Amino acid sequence: MNSFEYYNPVRVVFGPGTLQRVGEEAAKLGTSAMIVSYADHKLLKPVLTQAESLMKAAGVSSITFLEVEPNPEIGTVERGVQIAKESGVDMVVGIGGGSAMDAAKAIAAGFYYSGDLWNMVYSRHDNVDAIPPEKALPMLMVSTLPATASEMNQCAVVSNPALKEKSYIWGECLFPKTAILDPELTTTLPTFQTACGAADTISHVLEIYFNGQDKSDLLHRWQEGVMRNVIENLPKVLANEADIDARTELQWTATCALNGWASPGDAWTPMHQVGHVLTSRHGINHGSTLSIIMPAWMEYYKSTKPERCFTFATRVMGIDPEGKSQSEVIDEGLCAFRRFLKTSGVPITMSEKGVTKADIPAIVEGVKTVSFGSDGMLSCNPPVSAEDISNILLKAL
Amino acid sequence: MNSFEYYNPVRVVFGPGTLQRVGEEAAKLGTSAMIVSYADHKLLKPVLTQAESLMKAAGVSSITFLEVEPNPEIGTVERGVQIAKESGVDMVVGIGGGSAMDAAKAIAAGFYYSGDLWNMVYSRHDNVDAIPPEKALPMLMVSTLPATASEMNQCAVVSNPALKEKSYIWGECLFPKTAILDPELTTTLPTFQTACGAADTISHVLEIYFNGQDKSDLLHRWQEGVMRNVIENLPKVLANEADIDARTELQWTATCALNGWASPGDAWTPMHQVGHVLTSRHGINHGSTLSIIMPAWMEYYKSTKPERCFTFATRVMGIDPEGKSQSEVIDEGLCAFRRFLKTSGVPITMSEKGVTKADIPAIVEGVKTVSFGSDGMLSCNPPVSAEDISNILLKAL
Repeated sequence: MNSFEYYNPVRVVFGPGTLQRVGEEAAKLGTSAMIVSYADHKLLKPVLTQAESLMKAAGVSSITFLEVEPNPEIGTVERGVQIAKESGVDMVVGIGGGSAMDAAKAIAAGFYYSGDLWNMVYSRHDNVDAIPPEKALPMLMVSTLPATASEMNQCAVVSNPALKEKSYIWGECLFPKTAILDPELTTTLPTFQTACGAADTISHVLEIYFNGQDKSDLLHRWQEGVMRNVIENLPKVLANEADIDARTELQWTATCALNGWASPGDAWTPMHQVGHVLTSRHGINHGSTLSIIMPAWMEYYKSTKPERCFTFATRVMGIDPEGKSQSEVIDEGLCAFRRFLKTSGVPITMSEKGVTKADIPAIVEGVKTVSFGSDGMLSCNPPVSAEDISNILLKAL
Repeated sequence: MNSFEYYNPVRVVFGPGTLQRVGEEAAKLGTSAMIVSYADHKLLKPVLTQAESLMKAAGVSSITFLEVEPNPEIGTVERGVQIAKESGVDMVVGIGGGSAMDAAKAIAAGFYYSGDLWNMVYSRHDNVDAIPPEKALPMLMVSTLPATASEMNQCAVVSNPALKEKSYIWGECLFPKTAILDPELTTTLPTFQTACGAADTISHVLEIYFNGQDKSDLLHRWQEGVMRNVIENLPKVLANEADIDARTELQWTATCALNGWASPGDAWTPMHQVGHVLTSRHGINHGSTLSIIMPAWMEYYKSTKPERCFTFATRVMGIDPEGKSQSEVIDEGLCAFRRFLKTSGVPITMSEKGVTKADIPAIVEGVKTVSFGSDGMLSCNPPVSAEDISNILLKAL
């Protein structure tokens, strides 16, 4: 196993009906909240109204900041911070999926931040050293989309359209105080968003499973557990959107995929780095970038990491190895994974989203700008070069 | 899945060599520490000396309280509290296995507790309502025995020899601030203690796997991962005590077995309840009580929970089900588990420890006194009666 430091102080309130706890939990954190959610909040309207009223009943007044777009932009964060300061709120409540929660986290940290908020962004590799935030307003998250685990981690992803960059803010002050995960809130999620969230969940452990440094069988088995649980429960939800048991499984599994438990000390996410560029340059939603990149990247690893591909095929995809060669098993596993993704309704090639071979050099350049290290490589096991990424993207066409 | 609330704010510093961090980490918590460890600390002497000197170099003075016995007694805790108060320390450093850490936790909480410290004990079912502690001195734990996960949970087990009771203190104030897990410190552990710790680790998830309320496949797979990892790594350590990779696996696996991750919201531990009575009445060490009780209890479940027994056999013990009946597979799995325990050097019957059929009624009575609910049953899935426990103990003879 790796050496690591682990810390995650988020209090989780999990289970169907737990939205009812939002007032009581908010009251532990402050008296005056800013509720942060989407500009497009048609589906969430009843949740927002209920949260506001439960908080009011618990003695917590609130204002709303309903301006967040998918892949929240730094300008939106800046507006949120300005309003939070003007209103003198003492806490932030994020309600929604990863984008709403990430915006809420960035606003909570931006509240105390001096200078250009884009300086908070940690992982850009331009000439400006990031200065991560060290203090934030206390946060309560109500997660309505099982995917990013933002409700239980110290990361917020924000985009800068001027720079065509999408990257991370990272720091202990970004841990929410409390996360409410009520699977009943996810039963109205459209099928496509549910599937995208599931692809994102799988990617959070699959990245580590294939690219991580760690050889711990405990962690591999936990990562396999996450992937299997998504693969078993997503079809149930797609067949019956109201299946609360399967929704419940998907929600907790998504949180466990990126709260540090399944990969302490192992945080390389090369597939996400490439995915972020597909989002920032081609507007492809986050989950879809990963459903496209994962199989292509695994194709690339068939020759270099056959043993890991084999355990993926047998333990995750349930391929029976009896009487088959290793490469047959690997191919069957990858084929089954592609079929699972395709059946779920998410894209598995860039061409489905209008990206062509001619776009590849600019995408690679985008990854280099945002995510390459000073060694001229993308952190991975082993590190990958610009040429490697180009070859992987060719397999994703 | 169950509904649950989860919270665990312990900062973990994990990896070979991390004892070097003890001064730096202690200095974040206070300036004057009480180091709590065993009366019999021959093996730990170099660690204690090094910790003291690293803390001193970091500006943290310390006194030592080296009086803890295996299964720490409430009288020992009382003496520790008295000395801590007289010395005016502002933090507690527990160094050792579960008993040393539990004593350290009880002392840290007892420091602020009014009245009889035995009132802190939470799970007795006598006529005195327990009053759990609400405040404790900040704690740093250096865990040297992979077993109890005390370094990363909110529980401390203490014994009362006058009452022949062994039970829990439970409360959020018992979470250590920081846990240092340095697998190098475990390489000098005697073989038998290592095996007892491994049996304890397995029991922490096996209890939930068989008796829990939760049907989540994610959690079952995580529990299986814990058990498999112990089963794979313990033999390596028993063959080569200095195998740092296997020691590292065992240590993190032990922590993960009881820090809440593998069973959030599912905390019934009927096997532990019976085990505690075997300790308090017959002096059998904790790990051995569990290596004795686990197979007997599983024998009992062969008829009532055959499906769970089957997945244990195939997924945990690796039994190939091909061409076998369900009951054959189950028997092979249980047989393989008994063989694993026996080969590891821990007892698998009460008679090996001198306990006879005639002792069973008093043991059952002990479980009733300490752990039965007001419904006259022991919490379990389904709940078990005094007669059930008696039958299970007959299978453990």
